[in-house]
Amino acid sequence: MSYDGFLSRAANVMKESPIRLMGAVGARVHDLISFAPGYPDPATFPWDEFRTITGELLSGSDGNVLQYGPTRGYRPLVEALDAILSARGIASAFDERLITTGSQQGLDLLARVLIDPGDVILVELPTYTGAIAAFRNAQADQVGVPQDADGINLEALDATWSRLTSAGRRVKVLYVVPNFQNPTGLLIGLEKRRAVLEWAERRNVLVVEDDPYCDLYFRDTTTLAETRPIKADDANGRVIYLGSFSKTLAPGFRVAWIVGPVPIVAKLEIAKQATDICAGALDQRVVHQAIARGILEAQGERLRAHYQHKRTVMEDALRKELDGAISWVAPRGGFFLWATLAGGMDAGLLLTHAIEARVTFVIGSGFYVDGTGAGTLRLSFSQPSPERLVEGVARLATAVRALGASRQDPAAGAPSTLTGISAPRG
Amino acid sequence: MSYDGFLSRAANVMKESPIRLMGAVGARVHDLISFAPGYPDPATFPWDEFRTITGELLSGSDGNVLQYGPTRGYRPLVEALDAILSARGIASAFDERLITTGSQQGLDLLARVLIDPGDVILVELPTYTGAIAAFRNAQADQVGVPQDADGINLEALDATWSRLTSAGRRVKVLYVVPNFQNPTGLLIGLEKRRAVLEWAERRNVLVVEDDPYCDLYFRDTTTLAETRPIKADDANGRVIYLGSFSKTLAPGFRVAWIVGPVPIVAKLEIAKQATDICAGALDQRVVHQAIARGILEAQGERLRAHYQHKRTVMEDALRKELDGAISWVAPRGGFFLWATLAGGMDAGLLLTHAIEARVTFVIGSGFYVDGTGAGTLRLSFSQPSPERLVEGVARLATAVRALGASRQDPAAGAPSTLTGISAPRG
Repeated sequence: MSYDGFLSRAANVMKESPIRLMGAVGARVHDLISFAPGYPDPATFPWDEFRTITGELLSGSDGNVLQYGPTRGYRPLVEALDAILSARGIASAFDERLITTGSQQGLDLLARVLIDPGDVILVELPTYTGAIAAFRNAQADQVGVPQDADGINLEALDATWSRLTSAGRRVKVLYVVPNFQNPTGLLIGLEKRRAVLEWAERRNVLVVEDDPYCDLYFRDTTTLAETRPIKADDANGRVIYLGSFSKTLAPGFRVAWIVGPVPIVAKLEIAKQATDICAGALDQRVVHQAIARGILEAQGERLRAHYQHKRTVMEDALRKELDGAISWVAPRGGFFLWATLAGGMDAGLLLTHAIEARVTFVIGSGFYVDGTGAGTLRLSFSQPSPERLVEGVARLATAVRALGASRQDPAAGAPSTLTGISAPRG
Repeated sequence: MSYDGFLSRAANVMKESPIRLMGAVGARVHDLISFAPGYPDPATFPWDEFRTITGELLSGSDGNVLQYGPTRGYRPLVEALDAILSARGIASAFDERLITTGSQQGLDLLARVLIDPGDVILVELPTYTGAIAAFRNAQADQVGVPQDADGINLEALDATWSRLTSAGRRVKVLYVVPNFQNPTGLLIGLEKRRAVLEWAERRNVLVVEDDPYCDLYFRDTTTLAETRPIKADDANGRVIYLGSFSKTLAPGFRVAWIVGPVPIVAKLEIAKQATDICAGALDQRVVHQAIARGILEAQGERLRAHYQHKRTVMEDALRKELDGAISWVAPRGGFFLWATLAGGMDAGLLLTHAIEARVTFVIGSGFYVDGTGAGTLRLSFSQPSPERLVEGVARLATAVRALGASRQDPAAGAPSTLTGISAPRG
């Protein structure tokens, strides 16, 4: 039987995540080095501590450890968020906080609670594919705003708003990732953060601030002060802030949170009730214990050094292997290096050669809601070991050379759309 | 600032779950005995086994134990579903299965993938509130069909379909809980199950079969054969089947599954990607190990006896304390006893007296999509100890007497709507 007639309009626009798609490709190639997914390095997970904690929690003395729990979240964990948020300059009441099953759920719930089909969400160009997918599934109309070296371009932001509003469109939300943005690694400058907030007040737009990477700043270029969330200066309840434990403890626990105005968070909680009832009971307790025992705090310092080193290894390798063939934004934190291919090369075409060379990445166009970005790619340096980073970049260089060679020899399979574009140097 | 103008139409129709609401009430009353939530008894959880399993899983030798995982689910777990489904008579390919973050997520994903605002879902009267909420959040139009002692009334089902279809409405889905239905505890008879399937084929409606309780049949009245899922006879991909580990292992793990036609399940997977990326990595592995080590199998026999005994304790207590004041459906499995108050008493009014007597339940009207059911209530016998079941029923009897007394004395607060309705006997 055919199911086409049974699918909703939302289902008809749903698309597979380009990142997850890369994962599926990777699973079929032997000895692949993947720069694709934004996975933390499991070597950094505090395994011994987690084992001790779960051993204690599963004694059986507290039945609630494996029971359904409050949709709002395990109460001691919701309370423990206060100190984490305060350290980031954010004051929040208990009722302004909600535990989510990962930040992806936070984005999904926000889309459902805020967006009617056709409502506009302004997003950075490029932006996180998971946000794009969550907003698309709510049938939002996503409009991109270009970024400068210090983040979203304010003139373009307001011009976009004006254009849409003049056309009778409702611009409800601005979605930003101010710290080590996924995929570009950019930070919004401190002055600009305040300007974004003022703009949102003036134009009556809600700001959704997604901040999974703030703890992972690299000390050689960036200070804690530069990561101050927009939410920290939000006196009027204009900003909805998402934080996560996936990058600092482990993503396998699926525990994150939202902080926002009480009326919005109350709706998110009701939406969550019907979505999965509650986040995992054991997962939330492990995370709570990791906070209470100082494990999360200790992770921060350790991870900053760990990922900074990997970043250095990848950049050194890129300079050695691909100088001139790609340019990139120097990552100041987080997991990602954002690269642009020289000479008008297409990242999608490169990917075919890359998989042949047993390395993979995410093509940049998936991060652009306007369909641009053909020459860009995202390289994650978070998970592979330093040795694999070096080897992966060497393989990438092989792929770039193979693409270059194929373009100089149309018979070798270069598509006609590339005819006339000059060959890369690398 | 006001947020009303920012909320979506979906958000504006979202309502708090009546079950979860009861939980909030309960948290504020000292020594409350709760017959409200459908919580399994944590005394039955295999704590030692779970502790052993997590201790082994968290050795650190496999980084994937705490990593992001495939949206489809942890592969060995998806594979292990085969034996569970086969034992229920259901043949399924790998691609027809999806792990969900609890069955609530399955219902939510189905609603989003199948329903456009205004599409009709037919549901039993009464039916599970979590399904009602998930369907409501997708802005489905839910239409109720009455039940007989052997489940949904087929004549009413077809008459409802005909009426709606004649009126130009699209009836996409029939939602049923054939085994120990939440809230009534009813089973759909075997003959009727086949008739439901034939009806769905004839009328081109998808069947969503929600089956969390099938393992919990009570041997004194019910056989395994009587729980055979509708899906077992589904040769044409008409039925989407939901199963769960929440009642047989523990709900704190948030692991359940869907089985359905490949095109639908593929869409559900894409929807899930943007909803929470994947179910908990550790949770899924614990569940998989519990299957592989025979723990799930052993739980089945143990839980059937455990809950049957509690059911007997509650029924004996009801006969002793509330004979004549309430009638009920004898539970043949599952967690719930469905009761109707005699004499036109209102369960909402009773609840006030019940909380005063330190016992609580869920008022039945929350399970009716047509707003009826004022005289009904759901009593869960799953979680309280036998002693608390007896004490809780005694308290309930106190509440019923208090309500009766208040109705005979209008000055004591009986609402005018009850004037003229005869007082209960009990």
